[in-house]
Amino acid sequence: MKVITLGTSGTIPTLFRNLPSVVLQREGEIFLFDCGEGTQIQIVKSGLGFGRIKGIFISHLHGDHVTGLPGLLMTLAQSGRKEPLQILGPKGLKRFIETIKSCLGFFGEYEILVNEIEEGIVYKGDGYWIESSRVDHNTFTLGYALIEEERSGKFMLKKVLSLGVQEGPLFRELQLGRDITLKDGRVVRSKDVLGPKRPGRKVAYAIDTRPCQKVIDLAKDADLLIHDGMFSDELEEDAHLKGHSTHSQAARIAKEASVKKLVLTHISSRYRNIANADLLKNAKEIFPNIVIAHDLMKFEIPVHKSV
Amino acid sequence: MKVITLGTSGTIPTLFRNLPSVVLQREGEIFLFDCGEGTQIQIVKSGLGFGRIKGIFISHLHGDHVTGLPGLLMTLAQSGRKEPLQILGPKGLKRFIETIKSCLGFFGEYEILVNEIEEGIVYKGDGYWIESSRVDHNTFTLGYALIEEERSGKFMLKKVLSLGVQEGPLFRELQLGRDITLKDGRVVRSKDVLGPKRPGRKVAYAIDTRPCQKVIDLAKDADLLIHDGMFSDELEEDAHLKGHSTHSQAARIAKEASVKKLVLTHISSRYRNIANADLLKNAKEIFPNIVIAHDLMKFEIPVHKSV
Repeated sequence: MKVITLGTSGTIPTLFRNLPSVVLQREGEIFLFDCGEGTQIQIVKSGLGFGRIKGIFISHLHGDHVTGLPGLLMTLAQSGRKEPLQILGPKGLKRFIETIKSCLGFFGEYEILVNEIEEGIVYKGDGYWIESSRVDHNTFTLGYALIEEERSGKFMLKKVLSLGVQEGPLFRELQLGRDITLKDGRVVRSKDVLGPKRPGRKVAYAIDTRPCQKVIDLAKDADLLIHDGMFSDELEEDAHLKGHSTHSQAARIAKEASVKKLVLTHISSRYRNIANADLLKNAKEIFPNIVIAHDLMKFEIPVHKSV
Repeated sequence: MKVITLGTSGTIPTLFRNLPSVVLQREGEIFLFDCGEGTQIQIVKSGLGFGRIKGIFISHLHGDHVTGLPGLLMTLAQSGRKEPLQILGPKGLKRFIETIKSCLGFFGEYEILVNEIEEGIVYKGDGYWIESSRVDHNTFTLGYALIEEERSGKFMLKKVLSLGVQEGPLFRELQLGRDITLKDGRVVRSKDVLGPKRPGRKVAYAIDTRPCQKVIDLAKDADLLIHDGMFSDELEEDAHLKGHSTHSQAARIAKEASVKKLVLTHISSRYRNIANADLLKNAKEIFPNIVIAHDLMKFEIPVHKSV
């Protein structure tokens, strides 16, 4: 599983930071979280291509999070996409997409399935699901988490062969957790040839938001939390007023949620000339494994080993 | 007067070309022609800043020409603009901007004056005007030309002083073409102390369009013609079908309009690996002073000397 921060700016793009969008790639499927202006250009730069985009999850309908949708949807139409595209987000999303389509008169061969959602499990894939939770911004805003199911334990190939099981369909039965009976009547139990189950991975995404319990719950034990880090600590009042978080506030959320790594994004343009190390001095004391994302930064989340 | 091609791609952005937008800067005023997605980011990269944008002229309502408007309008709001902003373009522009504003709920302190226009003189400034003309695309599309008034001739300072005119308000009278009477009764005629009038400059803009007489008329004697150059010569049929021009077709338009320089833009993504010299071989035989624009390319148009 891989995360790429396509755009990492706050409300206004800068010379170095494009508007918000995050890619989550999992086994050939690509999901976008938010789609600020320029997202399609950042996708081109990332080398990912447009073909495998499965769904787009929108946090809220402030322009910096959706102004890249029209262009991306048009480019998907132009590039001959036929597979339906799911777009999920808060109420208002349908109207936004419908009016864009009708004003600009573009027609692709693919269907756009807009799903206006609230909190809960909002998407189910093969071996994972995506949850949404209402976070604390100045307008209705959703955070998201992609959560993988547990993976079956490691298949003990040598042991299976030594038990006299021949390579073929019976292997698959055992891998799926089913016991098998051999021709000589012996029973081979799946649990005897599979290692312990391997926990699934989890990535949580919460921008724009003040620090809040909902994010702690949503991100609980995540491998990666992508969190609002718009302001440095001395601007806590501004952060609260505008519905954002400071770096140390985000660090406290990461600590309380026991996540493994914290990625800060939605960075205010005022910090362009300040080194990240200086910005994160205090936050690192609260939660050490923290980084301020830059555009097109990649984070690999490897499969977990058995516990 | 300066032209900057902010984005030079065709319908789809590439690694090197952003979506269409052209800046025309004249004495501290900035005009945009079209506003594809990412235009605000290209403005940041150009170093121009947002403060001096006076008006935006939209050629037509295909998405690649307007998807940068929402983000730019929001950024102008965020940056505290108070001066009204004029946006001119074909019918449908008002609905597009109104729905964007209402869907995304952003409110600036500045007024957005949308003017749905047809052909004619659509804008008058201090010492220039802007004309529109319907060009030949698959939907109602306008080309534009900024045309300067003639400038008064060079003021012959030495001669004026030798005639006994004292520096002060009388200078201005003479510069404005008015004769003056000195205290001793002598009359100094303006025409005797001003050189011949200097022709104004002219820049024409016509994308997306097939080659057509309207563009020849619009661009007549322009210093610079920015023209649709989406396709190379062998794709003339595609160009016609899609409402665009080949490089040689654009060159013929430039020749017939007797422009000084031709800048091709709206370049199809298929040419990213082909040298411009190879693409322009035939076109240069028709009209030599031709260039394929790249993003953020600058063209200076100096004030004309006396004729």
